[in-house]
Amino acid sequence: MQIPAPLQPSTRILLGPGPSDAHPAVLRAMVNPLMGHLDPEFVSIMVQVQEMLRGVLKTKNKVTLPISATGMAGMECCLMNLLEAGDKVVVCAMGFFGQRMIDIAGRTGATVTTLQAPWGKTFSVDEIRDTVSKVKPKVLGLVHAETSTGALQPNIKEIVDICHEHGTLLVLDTVTSLACVEVDIDSWGVDAVFSCSQKGLGCPPGLSPISFSDRAVEAIKNRKTKVQSWYFDMTTVMSYWGQGQDRVYHHTAPISMIYAIHEGLRLVLEEGLENRWKRHWHNHRALKAGLEALNLHYTADAACQLPQLNAVRIPEGVDDLKGRKFLLEKFGIEVGGGLGDFKGKVWRIGLMGYNSKPAAVLLGLAALEQALANQGLKVDPGAAVGAANKYYAQA
Amino acid sequence: MQIPAPLQPSTRILLGPGPSDAHPAVLRAMVNPLMGHLDPEFVSIMVQVQEMLRGVLKTKNKVTLPISATGMAGMECCLMNLLEAGDKVVVCAMGFFGQRMIDIAGRTGATVTTLQAPWGKTFSVDEIRDTVSKVKPKVLGLVHAETSTGALQPNIKEIVDICHEHGTLLVLDTVTSLACVEVDIDSWGVDAVFSCSQKGLGCPPGLSPISFSDRAVEAIKNRKTKVQSWYFDMTTVMSYWGQGQDRVYHHTAPISMIYAIHEGLRLVLEEGLENRWKRHWHNHRALKAGLEALNLHYTADAACQLPQLNAVRIPEGVDDLKGRKFLLEKFGIEVGGGLGDFKGKVWRIGLMGYNSKPAAVLLGLAALEQALANQGLKVDPGAAVGAANKYYAQA
Repeated sequence: MQIPAPLQPSTRILLGPGPSDAHPAVLRAMVNPLMGHLDPEFVSIMVQVQEMLRGVLKTKNKVTLPISATGMAGMECCLMNLLEAGDKVVVCAMGFFGQRMIDIAGRTGATVTTLQAPWGKTFSVDEIRDTVSKVKPKVLGLVHAETSTGALQPNIKEIVDICHEHGTLLVLDTVTSLACVEVDIDSWGVDAVFSCSQKGLGCPPGLSPISFSDRAVEAIKNRKTKVQSWYFDMTTVMSYWGQGQDRVYHHTAPISMIYAIHEGLRLVLEEGLENRWKRHWHNHRALKAGLEALNLHYTADAACQLPQLNAVRIPEGVDDLKGRKFLLEKFGIEVGGGLGDFKGKVWRIGLMGYNSKPAAVLLGLAALEQALANQGLKVDPGAAVGAANKYYAQA
Repeated sequence: MQIPAPLQPSTRILLGPGPSDAHPAVLRAMVNPLMGHLDPEFVSIMVQVQEMLRGVLKTKNKVTLPISATGMAGMECCLMNLLEAGDKVVVCAMGFFGQRMIDIAGRTGATVTTLQAPWGKTFSVDEIRDTVSKVKPKVLGLVHAETSTGALQPNIKEIVDICHEHGTLLVLDTVTSLACVEVDIDSWGVDAVFSCSQKGLGCPPGLSPISFSDRAVEAIKNRKTKVQSWYFDMTTVMSYWGQGQDRVYHHTAPISMIYAIHEGLRLVLEEGLENRWKRHWHNHRALKAGLEALNLHYTADAACQLPQLNAVRIPEGVDDLKGRKFLLEKFGIEVGGGLGDFKGKVWRIGLMGYNSKPAAVLLGLAALEQALANQGLKVDPGAAVGAANKYYAQA
C-alpha cells in the first residue's frame, strides 16, 4: 500500500457545537513524554486533576474523575452504574441528546418513562413533579444544555428537590454547559453528572468528566447485579482513581489526554468560573446582535437560550451543505449542521471555552454575511459586524 | 483552592508492560490544532487510519477502526458485540488478561466455560479442540500475548480452523503482540481482534484498534437483542467509521489521538512489519543474554517467550517495590510489577515499539545491575551489559 505523508491538517476555526478549538497551551501539554499510569508522579497529577475538576463542577464529591472515553461514554457510565433490570427511570427529552439517553437507559433493562418537550423548549418544574410523583423512578435523566437546540434547562435545584422527595436520583448531562454557564453540582444537589473535554474546557475530545454524590455511590453499592460494562464499572474504576497513593490497576489511563485536561482545568480556574460564565454571555450578546442584523432566528425560546451554542434556522432559499462548505473552504470556519428533526434546517454556531472571544464573533459574522450573500440572500453589507461592534462599544 | 502550576512531567524511560515511550513524531502530531469530527478533511484522515490499520493487522476486513477508548475497551467491544444472553463462550485463560475476559464475557449474560493454563504456559491445540468440540460455543476468547506472564500463544491458525469447524468465532487479544511480533489476521482467519495504541504502535494510550471479519459482522447483524453498550455498539459506530464520505454522527472522535495513531501507523509501515518484528527479536535476545548474566529467570516457558515483554522472577531477598523505586528515582526507568498471582514476585521488562532499541537494552541492564547490588545481591559488575554487547557484536 501507499503510505500516506505525515499529517499537515488545515487550520480551522471551530465555531460549531464542539469540538471547539483547544487552548494552545493545552495542545502543548500533550507533547510531554509519557509516564506510566501507576507512576507516583502520575498519581499526583491524577489527584490534581480530580481536585481541579471538583472545583470546576463546584462539588466535594469524592467520586469525581475523567472517564477514559468521550462525552457520550459519560452518559452511558452514569446510567449503567445507577440502573439495572427492574429499575424505573424517567428521561426528559427536549432534543437529540435526551433521545440518546432514552436509548442508553433502555439498554440497562430498566423500564423507561419518557417526558418529551418540543425541540427548542425546556421543562417546567410542574411537568417534572407530576411525572416523578407518579412514577417514583430510581433515576431521572435530564439534559442541562441541549446541544441540538441551544436550550438551557432552568430550575435544576427545584427539580433535584422534587427528585429527592421521591427517592429519585438526578443524572444531569452538562456536556455543553460545563465551564460555559453556571453549573453548581453541590448547591443544586445533583447526584450524577457527566460532561466532555472538548467544549467549555477547551481540551481535545477524549475524556468525559463525571461525578457521583454519596447518595449515588450508595445506590451503586446496593446493586443486585454487576454493572453490565466492565470498562465503565465505577466500583472498579474507583480503585484506580481512589484516594491516596494506593491505586489498583484497572485500565491504562490515556496519559496525554490527562496532561491536556490538567492544563485545561488549570486555565479555567485561573480565569475564574464567574469570569468565564460572564465572558460567554458577553460574546454571545455580540453574536446575537449580529445574527439578528442578518435576520437569522434562534430555534430555542429566548428565555432559555444558551450563550455558548446559537442554533438558528437556515433562511428560506439557502442550502445547508453549500453554506457550510463555503464557510469551511473559504475561511476554515466550521459551524454545525442540524441533528435529527433539525437536519438541513438549522445551523449551530458555538462560542465555547477558548473560542468565546470577540475575534471569533466578528470573523464568524463577517464570513456568515458572505456565505448568505453567496447564495443570493439580500444582506446589508457590514450590518452584522456593525451590530456586534455596537454591542461591544456599549457593554 | 490552590491552582497547580503547569505540568513539567519528569522524563521517563518506559521499560514496563506499557505504556511504552511514544515516538517523538507521534507526540508532535498531537500539537496540530483540532478539526471537527465530521470535517471532510478529517474524514480523509480516518480513511487513511483505517487503511493503515488494515495493513498493520494484515487484514482486508471492512470493519477495522480504532475504538475511542483504551485497550480494555476493545476487549469489551468484541465480546459485547458478539455475545448476548443465552450464548455460549469458551475463554482460555493463561494469565491475568484471560481472567479479565472471563469477567467481561460473563457480563453479557452468556454462559462462560473456562479453560485454564498455569501462568507462564500456553494452550495446546488438542486441549482447545477437546473443549470446543464438546461445548460448541459461539465464541472462543484467546489471548495472543499474555502481558502478565510474557507468554505467546502459538498455533493461532490451527485454533481458528478448529473453531470454524464447529461454527465458533475466534476473538483474539493482540494488545501486547500487535506491531511487536507476527500478527496475520486474514491468513489465520481470526474473526475479531483488538489491540491498544500504547505498546507496539508507539502511541499514547487512548485508542483500541479493532477489526471484525465478515463472519463476525454477520453474527452481530443476527443478534436478537441490542448490544448492551451504546458506546461500543458496532452497528452504530460503523455508521460513523463506514465507507465513503457519508458519515453519520455517533460520538465525537478523539481528534488528537487520531492524529497520533495516524503517525504511529505510518511509522510502523515505513519500517515494515517484518523489519519491526525482527527488531523486537534482536533486542530481546540481547536483553535476555544480559538478564541471564544477572541470574534472572523468566516466568514463561522458553518455547513461548515473547520478545517484547520479559517477565522475570525477583530474586530471593530482593524487595519488589524498593527495586522499582530505585530504578524510577535514580534513572527514570519504569519496569512493571507483577499482576495477580505474580504480585510482588515478578518484574516485567518491556521493549516495545519505539523502545525496542539497543540504548534501552544497555541502560536497562546497567541500571538493573545497580538495583540488585543496592539490595545486597551479589552481581558480577558489567556482566549483564557485557553479555548483551557480546550478542550485538555477533548478531
